Amino acid sequence: MANGDEVKTGSVDPEGLTSNFDAHLGTEWLSLDPNDARCRVAVRDELRQPYGILHGGVYSTLVESLCSVVTAVTVYEEGKIAMGQAIEVSFLRPVSEGYAEARAVVRHRGRTTWVWQAEVLDAEERLCALAKMTMAVRPAPDQA
Amino acid sequence: MANGDEVKTGSVDPEGLTSNFDAHLGTEWLSLDPNDARCRVAVRDELRQPYGILHGGVYSTLVESLCSVVTAVTVYEEGKIAMGQAIEVSFLRPVSEGYAEARAVVRHRGRTTWVWQAEVLDAEERLCALAKMTMAVRPAPDQA
Amino acid sequence: MANGDEVKTGSVDPEGLTSNFDAHLGTEWLSLDPNDARCRVAVRDELRQPYGILHGGVYSTLVESLCSVVTAVTVYEEGKIAMGQAIEVSFLRPVSEGYAEARAVVRHRGRTTWVWQAEVLDAEERLCALAKMTMAVRPAPDQA
Amino acid sequence: MANGDEVKTGSVDPEGLTSNFDAHLGTEWLSLDPNDARCRVAVRDELRQPYGILHGGVYSTLVESLCSVVTAVTVYEEGKIAMGQAIEVSFLRPVSEGYAEARAVVRHRGRTTWVWQAEVLDAEERLCALAKMTMAVRPAPDQA
Repeated sequence: MANGDEVKTGSVDPEGLTSNFDAHLGTEWLSLDPNDARCRVAVRDELRQPYGILHGGVYSTLVESLCSVVTAVTVYEEGKIAMGQAIEVSFLRPVSEGYAEARAVVRHRGRTTWVWQAEVLDAEERLCALAKMTMAVRPAPDQA
Repeated sequence: MANGDEVKTGSVDPEGLTSNFDAHLGTEWLSLDPNDARCRVAVRDELRQPYGILHGGVYSTLVESLCSVVTAVTVYEEGKIAMGQAIEVSFLRPVSEGYAEARAVVRHRGRTTWVWQAEVLDAEERLCALAKMTMAVRPAPDQA
Repeated sequence: MANGDEVKTGSVDPEGLTSNFDAHLGTEWLSLDPNDARCRVAVRDELRQPYGILHGGVYSTLVESLCSVVTAVTVYEEGKIAMGQAIEVSFLRPVSEGYAEARAVVRHRGRTTWVWQAEVLDAEERLCALAKMTMAVRPAPDQA
Repeated sequence: MANGDEVKTGSVDPEGLTSNFDAHLGTEWLSLDPNDARCRVAVRDELRQPYGILHGGVYSTLVESLCSVVTAVTVYEEGKIAMGQAIEVSFLRPVSEGYAEARAVVRHRGRTTWVWQAEVLDAEERLCALAKMTMAVRPAPDQA
């Protein structure tokens, strides 16, 4: 699927796993490699909080979508589904223009749990957030 | 704005602090009381993730907006601003219809940090998420 | 073992689940009620960090022991074991004398996951830490 | 003090910052480099939980001591002190023999906050825990 090491837009197609909410945000998928997963959203007015910067919920959403989609795509072949279990985000630096890019690396692929570390960077590659996402992996309902 | 029957503070008006992103989600403000803050979003298709349930990023956004707005409104009188520093959310139960309501209580009002506990419930009052939000409180830029 | 006046369950005996590390700390068990679990450690010099206050690791250990023991005792009857999966602690106020008491309430008892909210108070009932503990619940090894 | 072959800084001496509680655990300091901080504790019976493995509180304590000491040593020259603000640990794999080694990298050195990512490995270099530690940095009391 994602196989260019710097695939930037469009060509990446997470096989229908892109959510309505991702579309509502405007998320672009860059890489679905579990060791270097990436997605990005361009700053636009709908995504700002009252001080004019990107709302923290946008960071959280990007990280959650990225880790969820890549986990789901990967465990699908084993007849399993992935559900977000917990997320933690530290907000380090505001983003006010350009884009925010989430990058994630899976650090633990257990039988029932995957744990991801992620970060959010701005267009100048500055670290804007650090995150951890825990995914529960379970047998697909019709196979449970 | 708020129109649910739990509305606590009559014409809740977060004084211009409602963000563009809150409007993009459709967040309704129910109470800005730091001991019982509440806001809500009705489930609609734009907010779903691929399995058809509410995207976890919606939960995170609701909690962050709620804690941020109430902290900001409260410390504004002291010439201070509030910035989200960290959020943690445990996802316990999916929401697929009705609405999701975030409820938050401030547990620590320090000089530089506020810490909130929050939860997200569905329309049947079932616990769907547990969260903690840490806000950094700082002097307003022109008073720093 | 427990000797504080908040003792709820009389002869609290965590059925051999008290750990060596709890003994090394000096943990006293006050209540194993999942809706009001409590344990306590008296401040003594071995437990201090360099500034002279209780080391944050003591708070984390109290919370983890409390949630783990109560979960384990409760699911034991169902042929299951409990393993700590994640802990989060916010440190709000130092403890320098008297004791630190952890209090925890289980907020989610899922089939595979229990989620606890906990807090740590000092001898004057002041809030010193807020915590969340996630326990993985699994079939006991010989029953898996 | 440190005697493992990973020792990076020769006679590592955290300048009196080693705590009583670290001594109670038996923590060995390996490196105080903020980009590759390390400390270790040998497994011994006092540190076990009821299932016989290292108590999770030991992991939390190692991570907290490591990040706290290195932050404190570094900001001391600027007339500042460091206090633990929050810790998050995901437990991935039990440690039952040998030692547990915490390794940490500072990812954000703000004026008032430092954020660390840390991990705990066993003697075979397997990942046993992932952690994040947030330190509050403040003017030293007599300089505030």
